[in-house]
Amino acid sequence: MTKAKKKQMETTGAGGWLSYRPELKVLDCTVRDGGLINEHKFSDEFVRGIYDAALAAGVDYFECGYKASKRLSKREDYGPWKFCDEADLRRVFGDEPDPAMKLTVMADAERTDYHLDILPKDQSILSMIRVACYIHQIPTAVEMLQDAHAKGYETTCNIMALSTIQENELHEALKILAATPVDVIYVVDSFGSLYSEQVRDYARMFLHAVEGTQKRIGIHTHNNQQLAFSNSIEAVVHGINLVDATVYGLGRGAGNCPMELLLGFLKNPKFDQRPLIECIQKDLLPLSKKLDWGYSLPYMITGQLNLHPRDAMELRESPQKEEFLAFYDKMME
Amino acid sequence: MTKAKKKQMETTGAGGWLSYRPELKVLDCTVRDGGLINEHKFSDEFVRGIYDAALAAGVDYFECGYKASKRLSKREDYGPWKFCDEADLRRVFGDEPDPAMKLTVMADAERTDYHLDILPKDQSILSMIRVACYIHQIPTAVEMLQDAHAKGYETTCNIMALSTIQENELHEALKILAATPVDVIYVVDSFGSLYSEQVRDYARMFLHAVEGTQKRIGIHTHNNQQLAFSNSIEAVVHGINLVDATVYGLGRGAGNCPMELLLGFLKNPKFDQRPLIECIQKDLLPLSKKLDWGYSLPYMITGQLNLHPRDAMELRESPQKEEFLAFYDKMME
Repeated sequence: MTKAKKKQMETTGAGGWLSYRPELKVLDCTVRDGGLINEHKFSDEFVRGIYDAALAAGVDYFECGYKASKRLSKREDYGPWKFCDEADLRRVFGDEPDPAMKLTVMADAERTDYHLDILPKDQSILSMIRVACYIHQIPTAVEMLQDAHAKGYETTCNIMALSTIQENELHEALKILAATPVDVIYVVDSFGSLYSEQVRDYARMFLHAVEGTQKRIGIHTHNNQQLAFSNSIEAVVHGINLVDATVYGLGRGAGNCPMELLLGFLKNPKFDQRPLIECIQKDLLPLSKKLDWGYSLPYMITGQLNLHPRDAMELRESPQKEEFLAFYDKMME
Repeated sequence: MTKAKKKQMETTGAGGWLSYRPELKVLDCTVRDGGLINEHKFSDEFVRGIYDAALAAGVDYFECGYKASKRLSKREDYGPWKFCDEADLRRVFGDEPDPAMKLTVMADAERTDYHLDILPKDQSILSMIRVACYIHQIPTAVEMLQDAHAKGYETTCNIMALSTIQENELHEALKILAATPVDVIYVVDSFGSLYSEQVRDYARMFLHAVEGTQKRIGIHTHNNQQLAFSNSIEAVVHGINLVDATVYGLGRGAGNCPMELLLGFLKNPKFDQRPLIECIQKDLLPLSKKLDWGYSLPYMITGQLNLHPRDAMELRESPQKEEFLAFYDKMME
C-alpha cells in the first residue's frame, strides 16, 4: 500500500471507506480504445510498455485491440491491434504471458469473422472475448458469445450507446443476455453523456437482471463531461465489479476513465499507481503531443447532446479545432 | 432553453430529472480564484469579458477578487483584483451594475483590513462579502461576518481545507457560525481531495447544522482528481444551493468546477452556455497558452495525498513540469 493510500485512509474516517472488495477487477483498454485515434498503429514497444505498466500496477485484464474482419478492413491500412492476430499477440506478449493479468480483445458484432478469427482458447494466449454490439445486434452478439464460450473463453457483452436505448428494449436485451453463458454485461457510456444518477440507475437495472446468476456487471465510460472517473466510482459504489480504464485516459474523443485516478481511489493494496506514472511520463506524454484526445469543449457539446463524438473528432482533427462557438452553433441547429 | 437541454430532457427519462430548483444559485469566481495564478494581474478588458459572459449566461453572483490588506501585500506587486478598491470596481463594472448578477469579493481572515477596506454597503457596488478562514480563525471570521453584516452585506463563510479538519472541531465551528448572521456556509474542497461520498456527508452535516434557519450551504471544488464538476453535482443533489464555478475551470492549480459544464447540467432555463463558449474561445483559450492551470498528474498526486497544491504548483511553474515520477517519489518520501 502506498503512503498516498494510507494518508487517504487516515483522513477519510472509518467505516466501509477503509475496506475493499477483492472481487472488484480492473480492465485496461488503453491500446484498444486508444487505437481508435491512430488506426491502431501503435509500435510493439509502446504496447509492451503499457502492458508492463498495467501488469506492475496490478491490473486484472488487458485488452490488446480488436478482432476486425479482414473482409471489411484492409490489413495494410491499419496497425496490427485492429486485428490482433495470434502471431502479433505472441510476438509482443510471449507464448506464456503472466496469468496475473488476463489478455482480452474486442469483437464488434457484424464486423468480426469470429468463426475464423477467434481461435479455440487452447490455441491462443487470449483469455476473454469482449463482444461489442448495438441494441439491434443482440441476436448476432448472442451467437458470438456462444461461439466464444464454446471455444473456452470468458466473455463480456458491451451494449454500446446505452444512452440512446429505450428502457423496454434494454430490459429485453438484458433478459436475453441473462440466458446466455456471458460472464459480464457492461454499462457502456459511449457518448460520455451520463450523469452519476443515471449510472446508478443503470447499475441497479443491470445488477437486477443478473440476480441469482454468477454474471457480473462492468462499466466503460468516456470523459466528455469530465465524469468518466466519477461515474466509474459511482458504478463501483453501486456494486459494479469490473471497471474499464486507460492509462492517462487515452481513448477515442474525450478519452476514458484514467487508470491512475481509478487505482488511486481503489483500496485493494495490490494496486500500485507508480508504474502508471512512470509509463505516462515515458510514453503517454510524448504521444499527447502528437495525438489529440481528452476533454475539450467539442466533446462536452456532443456529450451533453447525447450524440456520437464523430463531429467533435472531425473538428479536433481540423485546422478549426478551437472554433468552439461555430461548432456549438452548428450542433444546435 | 437550449436544444442541448431539450435533448437531454428527452433522453433521460421522467421524474425529478426534468425539474429544477429556482433557489439554486451559481457564483462565478473565475477572476478571484484565477487571480491566484497570475498575481491578480488581469486586464480590465479580460475581467469585463468574463463579467459580460457570466451575466449573459444567467450567473447569480460574480466574485471580483480579494480584499487583501495593503499592510501585508504591496499594491505595486499585484493587479487590482487582489484589493478590489471601490474605484477599480466602478471603473470596470460601472456605478450601477446590473442587479441580476450580484458582485462579491473574498476577504481572508487575518489578511484583510476589513474595518478600513470594506466600505458600508451604501458606498459600494458590492452586494456580498465572502469571508475565507481556516478552522483556527473562526473567531476572527465571526467578527468579520458581523462587521460585514452590520455594514449591510450578504455574507458567506468559506472554511478552507475542510478535508484536514477533525469532525468534532468542524461541528463546533458550524455551531458557532449558525449563531452568527452569516447567510451561506461553504463546503470548500481546497485540496481537491474529496470523493462524492465525502461531499454527500459534508452536505448533510452542514445542512443539518443550519436546520431551522434561513442559512444556505455552498460548495467550492477543485479539479485535482477530475471530480470538481461531479462533486458539485453531488452537492446539488444533496441540497446545496450555491455553487461556485469558473469559466473554463480557470483557478489555482488544477482549477475549479467549469461553469460551462455546470450550466449544461442545471435545468433552470435562465442559464445559457453560449456566452461562456464564446468567452472561452475569445479569452480563455489564449490565456491557457500563457498560464498553466487545470488537471495534471502533480495535482492529482497532492489531491490524493490531501495536501495543499503548493508543491505541485511550484513544479508546474518549473522546467521540470513534466517530471511526474520524480515528483511522485518526492511526495511519497
